[in-house]
Amino acid sequence: MAAQTILFDFTLDKDKTADEEARQQVAKILRNELEHLFPQLELAYSMESPENGYFAVLHENKDTVVTCRIFQHGLLTLNVEYFLPDGKEPLISFDELMQTGRTLESGLAIKLKAKKAQKLPTLKRGDVSRYFPTADERIIEYDIDKVVYEGRSPFQKIQIMHSKTLGNMLLLDELQNIAESDLIYTETLMCRGVENYEGKEICILGGGDGALLYELLKENPKHVVMLEIDELVMQTCNKYLSVICGDVLEKRKTDQYEIVVGDCVEYLKKFIGEGRKFDYVFGDLTDIPITDVPEGETWDFIRTIFEHSFKVLKPDGKYLTHGNGSTCKVQLRLFEEQLNLLRPKVKFTTTKAFVPSFMEEWLFYQVTFA
Amino acid sequence: MAAQTILFDFTLDKDKTADEEARQQVAKILRNELEHLFPQLELAYSMESPENGYFAVLHENKDTVVTCRIFQHGLLTLNVEYFLPDGKEPLISFDELMQTGRTLESGLAIKLKAKKAQKLPTLKRGDVSRYFPTADERIIEYDIDKVVYEGRSPFQKIQIMHSKTLGNMLLLDELQNIAESDLIYTETLMCRGVENYEGKEICILGGGDGALLYELLKENPKHVVMLEIDELVMQTCNKYLSVICGDVLEKRKTDQYEIVVGDCVEYLKKFIGEGRKFDYVFGDLTDIPITDVPEGETWDFIRTIFEHSFKVLKPDGKYLTHGNGSTCKVQLRLFEEQLNLLRPKVKFTTTKAFVPSFMEEWLFYQVTFA
Repeated sequence: MAAQTILFDFTLDKDKTADEEARQQVAKILRNELEHLFPQLELAYSMESPENGYFAVLHENKDTVVTCRIFQHGLLTLNVEYFLPDGKEPLISFDELMQTGRTLESGLAIKLKAKKAQKLPTLKRGDVSRYFPTADERIIEYDIDKVVYEGRSPFQKIQIMHSKTLGNMLLLDELQNIAESDLIYTETLMCRGVENYEGKEICILGGGDGALLYELLKENPKHVVMLEIDELVMQTCNKYLSVICGDVLEKRKTDQYEIVVGDCVEYLKKFIGEGRKFDYVFGDLTDIPITDVPEGETWDFIRTIFEHSFKVLKPDGKYLTHGNGSTCKVQLRLFEEQLNLLRPKVKFTTTKAFVPSFMEEWLFYQVTFA
Repeated sequence: MAAQTILFDFTLDKDKTADEEARQQVAKILRNELEHLFPQLELAYSMESPENGYFAVLHENKDTVVTCRIFQHGLLTLNVEYFLPDGKEPLISFDELMQTGRTLESGLAIKLKAKKAQKLPTLKRGDVSRYFPTADERIIEYDIDKVVYEGRSPFQKIQIMHSKTLGNMLLLDELQNIAESDLIYTETLMCRGVENYEGKEICILGGGDGALLYELLKENPKHVVMLEIDELVMQTCNKYLSVICGDVLEKRKTDQYEIVVGDCVEYLKKFIGEGRKFDYVFGDLTDIPITDVPEGETWDFIRTIFEHSFKVLKPDGKYLTHGNGSTCKVQLRLFEEQLNLLRPKVKFTTTKAFVPSFMEEWLFYQVTFA
């Protein structure tokens, strides 16, 4: 079951929306046109304000509800909403519009003498969650056809959704994390082909989806230890994401690797106490938070991770981590400022890749002692 | 300038929405909660129908308008809309929600005892067009920060938009066509690394963005002829998309290639008359139309192109073309049915790639005589 919400925008000359009389004129033209398309349409309610323009509700048998706003800045928004039972055809179908050769918005645009008219792709609400934000809060609709798994660990909500083109996707607290399509993510994080992992000692902080561990083991390292807090994430990925994690989450300890279930900060402290050092430390934990100041729990956590990670790194070791969407300039700068505050001093390079399941370009950091 | 439209969905137990009394109860809880958040909120209008549920309009000084629908199927939709002048902060900001630690939807979900609550990423309406559909009509918001060029040729509307991560994008009649990020598109269309173009004779039908011609010329073919109808598309791409087309659109004729401005069907007929044959013909024209039956102008055009193309192909020649989004199973099947109707018989293989500016996986066809 899903409600369909269809949004239209029209840009008008400002003088057509500047005062009440002008707006009433536009509203009348709009109503006349809509009444052609929806013969049983009735005006149910309208209001007008000198500062906030015109608003009206029209409906057809209280089923299809149309709301219209005319802002005094030359913008008219039209929202159409109705319920579409499973298996029924949508009210305004693409096919139909192709056949008439004229879309609702282009027809209205002519009558309204609009400078610009746009129909947003129809929003489907109420069944599967299919809309997720990018790092810079843009809406992306995924071609999700099935909720494969839903669970809740003591740490987070865990979901596996199936996308027709991206395969199974892991979502943590409703944010997309990694999908079967995302080998490029892991390869860019580990700088495959650039870094040489053969015979190296490696520590992964987080990495519960198993993809990084799986790819690293192909490069013949001496040993990898992975510190992941969420047992349920690993069980879930082992079951539903084996395309990207193979069978590495099946066992918790082999000659080549060890997975420790626990708080990575506690284990880093333990390693520091023991004087244990690594050639590579991977920060595969939370993303950089999208805030304008580097404050709050997550930023504190990031600083704690930095501080401890560099204490377990060999002098020529590398700390590799993901950053955030490359459009999030402010947050990436804040992240770099935190790196620059570290003592002993560090320096960094970056790599980037378009990650299919994120539908955006992502930035990755490679940090060494300066 | 932009209006902000914020949509929330709540899934409720069906008995909470099954009859008027139950819906009134839900509406009351919702109003009480909203009045906490928006102290000046007023109920302006409401209506109720046994078949179509409850609808209400609330507003704050006629500025922020909230509409609410309670469908009898256990779905509550909440739409918030207001005008945000340039440079002002949004009403419901992400930062604010992070700091309070509770989002509007999670707060409401608790009060409404909702099984599921979701806020769609905020929609921004009225300034730049930023929402475009995928082949299967999913909404995608692009990180467009500038309209670089807008024009209209006798054939189509031509726009160059700048995306922060995809670079300049070519849009034809409001549909994304190719962007600076899309080398993979051209490479998959031409099967780079698999096909050998050295010393070959090639005909491109369409291809006005110049990217295919540019990449083919790197493979040292004997000669390429390109038949493109839209002069303005080529001028525009030459100016704004040189990252993908280099300088091949600067000249119309060299020893290696010739660009003919005209109707490709007319020129194909001419080639057939002359007995001219090619090793490769590229169909770089319109996409497969999204219809449920293979009828209408565009399907007729596709059949005409097929028919003529195979007449200018050497016996061991190949016809290479793009298909559509790999989720558009019905349309791809219709396309393949048209191929199977051809006489002499043909056979085909397919390749696919995730195209960054399409934000989806695209299917490509390689057709030879059977």
